[in-house]
Amino acid sequence: MRNLNQDNITQAVIASFAETENPRLKEIMISLVQHLHAFARDVKLTEGEWFQGIEFLTRCGHITDERRQEFILLSDVLGLSMLTVAMNQQRPKGCTEATVFGPFHVKDAPHYELGADIANGAKGTPCLVRGRVLSADGKAIPHAHLDVWQSDEDGLYDVQHEGLAQAQARGTLNADALGQYHFRSIVAVPYAIPHDGPVGAMLQATGRHPWRPAHLHFKVEAPGYQPLITHVFRNQSEYLDSDAVFGVRQSLICDWVAQADGSYLLEYDFVLNPVAQG
Amino acid sequence: MRNLNQDNITQAVIASFAETENPRLKEIMISLVQHLHAFARDVKLTEGEWFQGIEFLTRCGHITDERRQEFILLSDVLGLSMLTVAMNQQRPKGCTEATVFGPFHVKDAPHYELGADIANGAKGTPCLVRGRVLSADGKAIPHAHLDVWQSDEDGLYDVQHEGLAQAQARGTLNADALGQYHFRSIVAVPYAIPHDGPVGAMLQATGRHPWRPAHLHFKVEAPGYQPLITHVFRNQSEYLDSDAVFGVRQSLICDWVAQADGSYLLEYDFVLNPVAQG
Ligand SMILES: [Fe+2]
Ligand SMILES: [Fe+2]
Repeated sequence: MRNLNQDNITQAVIASFAETENPRLKEIMISLVQHLHAFARDVKLTEGEWFQGIEFLTRCGHITDERRQEFILLSDVLGLSMLTVAMNQQRPKGCTEATVFGPFHVKDAPHYELGADIANGAKGTPCLVRGRVLSADGKAIPHAHLDVWQSDEDGLYDVQHEGLAQAQARGTLNADALGQYHFRSIVAVPYAIPHDGPVGAMLQATGRHPWRPAHLHFKVEAPGYQPLITHVFRNQSEYLDSDAVFGVRQSLICDWVAQADGSYLLEYDFVLNPVAQG
Repeated sequence: MRNLNQDNITQAVIASFAETENPRLKEIMISLVQHLHAFARDVKLTEGEWFQGIEFLTRCGHITDERRQEFILLSDVLGLSMLTVAMNQQRPKGCTEATVFGPFHVKDAPHYELGADIANGAKGTPCLVRGRVLSADGKAIPHAHLDVWQSDEDGLYDVQHEGLAQAQARGTLNADALGQYHFRSIVAVPYAIPHDGPVGAMLQATGRHPWRPAHLHFKVEAPGYQPLITHVFRNQSEYLDSDAVFGVRQSLICDWVAQADGSYLLEYDFVLNPVAQG
């Protein structure tokens, strides 16, 4: 533990975790230190660069509050969020695929009856959304719980509107006894993730854009099934092939169909993965 | 860019940095993504663990302010700070070794005349500190600039005392024309790094203690020489072999010699590394 140099410090730090009681925590800390040190060694990180990293994380922390989560954004744009989803959310063929959670979900969004307009005043072109919640065997799952959230036509979620008191373009619903759900909302548009903070500065410095293709977020849950966190993406939206957070899956892309009255119709069925009951 | 899975997402994220103008930034981002993803893959990070990580970083950001830097503490206890120092501060044999900067340095500490008491009211046993600033060839370096900081006998730096207006146990001085410096301060004691925050929780969960052996911080600068950021450690201090931040170097350990009047004397010479002038 004296005179540690670049060749032996990693082993010394690993050894410092020897007394960790929780074996999983120990495994994670040891792997984290190995990879963190390997990164610093590979790029021969300078002290100035190290300090820029400290300042970057500090700015991420200071811009994060109840309504903004810069660390999730950072994880999203570095592909860590989608990697974590991909590793943990593998489902049998035929089940709806999962994608990133994103930073804009709100706990305790208002609950609506089927058919309600969850836009609740959010600006946008009216859109009817409907479909079914099914089991992998094609049978309806009754009364599944759906949590939906999306941006308005300016590309902003309600939580991004300073001083907005009510929830807009988000809500929870329960499908009916036949597994059917339907609600009114607005047409989803591509939007830029918040890029006025450190993550935006990083995207700019690396020549990356902050845009995501148009999508609706869904969290679908029913007893006996693996919870599903996913999006439905709008077909032919811009950025389907350059999503800033790497979340697009072909099976989640769907048509928003224009109706005679200028509104749109989106139909999408969710297929949940049954889990063994404990 | 669609249907990315755990096997191809890393390449997709790396490709997203293709347009980065600054080649060094590009190199760093690509390596960071590779190692970050490798870590997540190696431990098969769960979504719950991912979210614990997001929350941990958020807590680090929210406890960090003008007087507290939790991200530097985190880097310190993971050995990243010492690794960065070790990679960048290799010096010829005979030169004083560098060690970690730590989170307690303050810009614009008060300047003192040689012989002054920089304790400035800090609690502790009086100590005279003196020595010389030398070049690697043994010649005196005149008028080197010294920046000194240390904790009080309660193990707290002035910035950790809520509401304390003046600097205590820190200051800058200039050595004289013969390279000699001397000042009064207090005896250094072992202290625990701040452990009431997320880094402290991590140390506790991993069975690690937060203590550092007794030391004085020095930053020594003179034109024509590589700046030196280091500590002088107190011989026979507790924790010399288990420094929470991995910073101890044998060559930086020195005796604090008890004097007849109950005060102490610390003598230490700094040897700076000449650099080619631009
Ligand atoms: Fe979104
Ligand atoms: Fe210190």
